[in-house]
Amino acid sequence: MLLLGGVQRALGLCRPHSGGCRSYSVAVQLVDDLRALVGESNVSTAKVVREQHGRDESMHSCQPPDVVIWPQNVEQVSKVAELCYARSVPMIPFGTGTGLEGGVAAVRGGLCLNLTRMDRILNLRTDDFYVTVEPGVTRKALNSYLRDSGLWFPVDPGADASLCGMVATSASGTNAVRYGTMRENVINLEVVLPDGRVLNTAGKDRSFRKTSAGYNLTSLFVGAEGTLGIITKATLRLYGVPEATIAAVCSFPSVQAAVDSTVQILQCGIPIARIEFLDDVMIDACNKFSNLHYPTLPTLFLEFHGTETGVKEQVQQTELITQINGGSDFTWAQGQEERNKLWTARHNAWYSALALRPGCRGYSTDVCVPVSKLPQIIVDTKEDLLTSGLTGPIAGHVGDGNFHCIMVLDLNDQDEVRKVKEFTDRLARRAMAMNGTCTGEHGIGIGKRRLLQEEVGDVGITAMKQIKATFDPKNLMNPGKVV
Amino acid sequence: MLLLGGVQRALGLCRPHSGGCRSYSVAVQLVDDLRALVGESNVSTAKVVREQHGRDESMHSCQPPDVVIWPQNVEQVSKVAELCYARSVPMIPFGTGTGLEGGVAAVRGGLCLNLTRMDRILNLRTDDFYVTVEPGVTRKALNSYLRDSGLWFPVDPGADASLCGMVATSASGTNAVRYGTMRENVINLEVVLPDGRVLNTAGKDRSFRKTSAGYNLTSLFVGAEGTLGIITKATLRLYGVPEATIAAVCSFPSVQAAVDSTVQILQCGIPIARIEFLDDVMIDACNKFSNLHYPTLPTLFLEFHGTETGVKEQVQQTELITQINGGSDFTWAQGQEERNKLWTARHNAWYSALALRPGCRGYSTDVCVPVSKLPQIIVDTKEDLLTSGLTGPIAGHVGDGNFHCIMVLDLNDQDEVRKVKEFTDRLARRAMAMNGTCTGEHGIGIGKRRLLQEEVGDVGITAMKQIKATFDPKNLMNPGKVV
Repeated sequence: MLLLGGVQRALGLCRPHSGGCRSYSVAVQLVDDLRALVGESNVSTAKVVREQHGRDESMHSCQPPDVVIWPQNVEQVSKVAELCYARSVPMIPFGTGTGLEGGVAAVRGGLCLNLTRMDRILNLRTDDFYVTVEPGVTRKALNSYLRDSGLWFPVDPGADASLCGMVATSASGTNAVRYGTMRENVINLEVVLPDGRVLNTAGKDRSFRKTSAGYNLTSLFVGAEGTLGIITKATLRLYGVPEATIAAVCSFPSVQAAVDSTVQILQCGIPIARIEFLDDVMIDACNKFSNLHYPTLPTLFLEFHGTETGVKEQVQQTELITQINGGSDFTWAQGQEERNKLWTARHNAWYSALALRPGCRGYSTDVCVPVSKLPQIIVDTKEDLLTSGLTGPIAGHVGDGNFHCIMVLDLNDQDEVRKVKEFTDRLARRAMAMNGTCTGEHGIGIGKRRLLQEEVGDVGITAMKQIKATFDPKNLMNPGKVV
Repeated sequence: MLLLGGVQRALGLCRPHSGGCRSYSVAVQLVDDLRALVGESNVSTAKVVREQHGRDESMHSCQPPDVVIWPQNVEQVSKVAELCYARSVPMIPFGTGTGLEGGVAAVRGGLCLNLTRMDRILNLRTDDFYVTVEPGVTRKALNSYLRDSGLWFPVDPGADASLCGMVATSASGTNAVRYGTMRENVINLEVVLPDGRVLNTAGKDRSFRKTSAGYNLTSLFVGAEGTLGIITKATLRLYGVPEATIAAVCSFPSVQAAVDSTVQILQCGIPIARIEFLDDVMIDACNKFSNLHYPTLPTLFLEFHGTETGVKEQVQQTELITQINGGSDFTWAQGQEERNKLWTARHNAWYSALALRPGCRGYSTDVCVPVSKLPQIIVDTKEDLLTSGLTGPIAGHVGDGNFHCIMVLDLNDQDEVRKVKEFTDRLARRAMAMNGTCTGEHGIGIGKRRLLQEEVGDVGITAMKQIKATFDPKNLMNPGKVV
């Protein structure tokens, strides 16, 4: 057994803020107990494994847990939580590690629960449009499973994230403008509470399109970033695969023209499925990375879902609007393969941006404002980038008022790191001054706790801290995140 | 000053469960303080006024508060809460009194806050599809205000309820199948907490289509039935008025045929705006009450929203499905006036049912199940009604799996009252056995607390009680409801 740093770092028992140092033997005993519980091969204290579990895709530095386990079922998760609760060991749930706000960093050490080996898809009910998934099931795995059912799960953050991880961060992505975010698409959750009790947020095995039975516990756990409990099952709402789908690309003479088109499309009530903005820098990066040849101009990627007739009508109405705003003719992507190519390029925006400066790391901003404020905030933000001399191509789910500057930076350049930090704080405050939020879909994690306080105010943050203390009185569930 | 029952009942200070009897002078002092705070004319202790505020539209018996006040603004509500908190006086928010689960009954006496004089509509943002309303604004008042804006607020429980009351009970109604319930349509809330602090659940003046900034406080207060705080403002999502709207009525040879049609319409992904079921007893009652002449058969009332072309297509697809199931030709209601007549008849179902037995009271059941279970549960329930010899016409928002038996009963007939109680419990448990809920949209109130416990289980009810204790440690906010 290799516990990094021995007694001083073992299992979060001996951190300055964990209330005194207990004996190394306690840690040894816990790891032995974990092995007995989940099996020898499902526990690791190897440094390389721990380091893989201490970081996500963001620039936040790696903070490895002391031990990683792979539980096989909810009973094991419950018993592990009981053990950790009794011994005051921090617990961090881990899915695919594709988060963007350092949500999995083990800031107080402790135990990482890698949930990817709990990957069953349960109880698909095609007639009632729902399915239950364990936490190891990813978005793509579910949609692949659903292939012949005529149904799909539309929430699509780009990464092939685990669905329960997406629940935990209240993820959304390109389809949210039409189908909503995780908040609107979770029907029920099974959650292991810090002391090991198993909570079914809407009652065991329940599934309904609506309810007014007591407090909305489901919504409380969506977006809680693993700080209130460990999600072990999620019942999700499914949708019929649309009869017709068409995607298109349209270039604009200016940011304002592209975003104005977006606002007008929404105002006309066109039920657009995806409307994604890429600025000139972003489209250039995507062209290079994905071998595409779109004009290096502010661009919208669009997708329409509906009946054959309905889609035609949507396209006609949309083209009228884009043309009025000086948009180019649409470039079409009609077949599945062409559409895949288009959306893969969009979803590779992150890697395309990183490729602009090899060896650098990325950090994505995530503000969201009322849609009418988008033209102004994007124009202001591009000016700010220029003035600050920073690389930050812009891609955004503009139909929701949400956009990202993908900041590419050299972590060894302290001046640049500081500038990026100042820029992102300035952007968050610019959004908040426009009635917006500092995070539309990535969550608070470790980096935005101060911004959260500014956003929700003293009474709001007090309420959140009270909820945290109620559900997790020992502050063991993913400590140091959100509040 | 006329405080009912004097010292023994004054202001909830002297109830057996309120922790000892204080002096009558404390009560007198509080009422004087309230008068100083909100003005002489905005405080009443008159018996008739208190009784008006102690009941809703249900059969739950009247439990009047000790005093009723009409605050004018959030500052007054906050100060009133401070006063009551300091003196441990229960507070019950009151909107239009159109609830159906005894949510306003002052089971521990105390102070009723009638919020109807806070009735401003604020900050309409047509370009961003939202508006903020004070608690006295009703659904119809808002839609009347929006008339020339091209927007509307679609959630429609039938009654002209206050919108903040609808937030509090997580109301929905006929349009939820297309536009969601209050849960999906509240962006932000201003809430006065029991101790007088003012919470903005998503941060002050914030409005966005999505966020992942911390715990979802907004959703926690939607459906909390006034047990966690007093809602003083709600920011609501608005929708574009559809270009075309058509309503239709279709009769069926059997319940099964009507409900099967509903399930198939949903499965085909037709974006139907309303699909309401009325059984033969209900349609007969509506015919008599609203002077209509529909066949006395299981019936669907349907409404389609969209573009002219889109609505035509929806109607064609729907007609095909209803005809396959043996449905009649559609009876159309195309103009605004005809549609109003149709939906008024549907919304008068409650009064139509009551008119079946003059002098009797009504109680509406409210179960909701996965849509595929609807045919079975409705057939079983009709058999149960027959066997029990009870009057309970059925109307339901079947697109959501939600239906109501409107029980009409003679409150003086103890045997009938017992039978109704047994029937409604049996129905709730039948729904729960089919993965459903005991309440789709009316809430828990005073009558369904035991059912809630069965529905969410011990861990769930403990979590809800913890939340209640966290936000309302003295149990002053609408005590005796939900948990």
